[in-house]
Amino acid sequence: MSNPINTRIVLAARPSGEPDASHFRLERLPVPAPGPGQVLLRNRYLSLDPYMRGRMDAGRSYSPPVAIDDVMEGRTVGEVLESRHPGFAVGDQVVATGGWQTFAVVDGDAITRRLDGMTLPLSTALGVYGMPGFTAYAGLHEIGKPQPGETLVVAAASGPVGATVGQIAKMRGARTVGIAGGEAKRQYLETIGFDVALDHRADDFSEQLRTAVPGGIDVYFENVGGKVFDAVVPLLNDFARIPVCGTIATYNARGQVLPGPDRLPGFFSQILRQRLSVRGFIQRDFIDLFPRFLEEMGQWLADGRIQYREDIVEGLENAPEAFFGLLKGRNFGKLVVKLE
Amino acid sequence: MSNPINTRIVLAARPSGEPDASHFRLERLPVPAPGPGQVLLRNRYLSLDPYMRGRMDAGRSYSPPVAIDDVMEGRTVGEVLESRHPGFAVGDQVVATGGWQTFAVVDGDAITRRLDGMTLPLSTALGVYGMPGFTAYAGLHEIGKPQPGETLVVAAASGPVGATVGQIAKMRGARTVGIAGGEAKRQYLETIGFDVALDHRADDFSEQLRTAVPGGIDVYFENVGGKVFDAVVPLLNDFARIPVCGTIATYNARGQVLPGPDRLPGFFSQILRQRLSVRGFIQRDFIDLFPRFLEEMGQWLADGRIQYREDIVEGLENAPEAFFGLLKGRNFGKLVVKLE
Repeated sequence: MSNPINTRIVLAARPSGEPDASHFRLERLPVPAPGPGQVLLRNRYLSLDPYMRGRMDAGRSYSPPVAIDDVMEGRTVGEVLESRHPGFAVGDQVVATGGWQTFAVVDGDAITRRLDGMTLPLSTALGVYGMPGFTAYAGLHEIGKPQPGETLVVAAASGPVGATVGQIAKMRGARTVGIAGGEAKRQYLETIGFDVALDHRADDFSEQLRTAVPGGIDVYFENVGGKVFDAVVPLLNDFARIPVCGTIATYNARGQVLPGPDRLPGFFSQILRQRLSVRGFIQRDFIDLFPRFLEEMGQWLADGRIQYREDIVEGLENAPEAFFGLLKGRNFGKLVVKLE
Repeated sequence: MSNPINTRIVLAARPSGEPDASHFRLERLPVPAPGPGQVLLRNRYLSLDPYMRGRMDAGRSYSPPVAIDDVMEGRTVGEVLESRHPGFAVGDQVVATGGWQTFAVVDGDAITRRLDGMTLPLSTALGVYGMPGFTAYAGLHEIGKPQPGETLVVAAASGPVGATVGQIAKMRGARTVGIAGGEAKRQYLETIGFDVALDHRADDFSEQLRTAVPGGIDVYFENVGGKVFDAVVPLLNDFARIPVCGTIATYNARGQVLPGPDRLPGFFSQILRQRLSVRGFIQRDFIDLFPRFLEEMGQWLADGRIQYREDIVEGLENAPEAFFGLLKGRNFGKLVVKLE
């Protein structure tokens, strides 16, 4: 390889509200050489996820923000082109935090997963068989704990977290209600086994949800917030569990002052009266469960018990537009950028 | 006994907002006779607790409301005067849901606890060695889980729940910050071992709290709500736990529309960012722990490792006024009405 060029997208400015093209900048630079203990990766797939919106903001979150002019953070599937780490050889396929770029130099010790012997498509290591799938698995295992006969509700249910939540909960014997935006996604939910599938864009969505859960809601897997949350709250049963892994509806509203009334004190009264349990998590909080997830989910995928859908966009240059669409629910399935 | 008279206080009307004397009515009626399986109790002590405000409202809570013209619900220590239940004999001392009255007929099977061989004052079975003490014990054991070196904050800290929370957390190795209203209570907190004691009436209370927790807050035991909660929220550490056993500050506000801004979406974002855990509970949710509590707390009290304070009011006719004071924080220690 003579002087290959790395194409990368950096954070150009911090958005207030919705991000747009002005907040990113595409750059072409020579591919850097790996130092001792590092490997050079050719990124094949880049995962686009809602949490990335949070990384664009300054301030406190569960991870530090991306710095201005730094490459946008992102998980990738990559192939080792050059290795200065004894654990990796040229040609190895790995999952790494490779970022929004076509090549990446990463510390070998920081590579989170090898994909040796993977029989599923490599892109699934970024979706149903990766972080989003594990988010669903761990959130249900540790917090949601759906029991046979209970009712679980999840929104963004055609996405990689929501779809997996619904299918695992169904295997656990729960009745599942999936919510998505638009009729195509709604119909898809029915094909993957949700007992009830609803379109949150319907004018009478709240009424539809009420009708769909005659016995109330025992688990609300919160990955969206906004109007779905508002419709769910009055339908919660005593002892309901709310794992919170995302609040995408408010990601763009951070720091904004929202109009009243103030519902927080009333929600705390409800938490007490109904003995609700609300807990935020990200998947790495439960990383000890990951080997068990790989084994169990690998089997479910091989058996066809868990289905998944990917939304694959070609070319890094299309990543920003795809990401804007993700924040608006325009993707249909796990959003992945194919990088070659 | 020839025709003894039962003095009782019934719910005369449902308050909207603060209750006052017009919502109660004192009645004198002949003492009823116990039926098969029942016992007649002479109530000696009546516990007054914040949760009773909730029972005055119609509508959904963790227990049904008291009906209009029914005797107010309340836990009592009583002595068996007459027994038609094989498990109880005349003279037995018990804890029962005897209500705001001097005599009570209750099902023997519904008596929650016998006080045979109790060496502590009987009134403590309604306080530190009863439901409030168990609320503290169970909430810490199951939800708060203070670890050595962590910081715990609790308000209403001179009350029976808060004082016990602070002392147990201290035994568990946590740093404890107690909050109460007024200088006398604040000083009392120092005598029972809180590392820092604050008066929430201070103009610069929020600043004082911030200064008191340089390492942030790991456990906020929520039994008050209101301005203490508001001051706590920005100081919470990642993975903080918030057991919620009371929101007394808003008990009178139920059904009211509170002015904005709406803090609920922002709080959910914080729950996610900081992986907070918020869980409502009442002590009976953890009733399996009660025998262990009796053993452990009995020993702590005998050893003087847990201290307590009672606020004893004489005479049932003074119960309503004492209850109004309880809702305003005027009591100093566990509020108990002595009934003879």
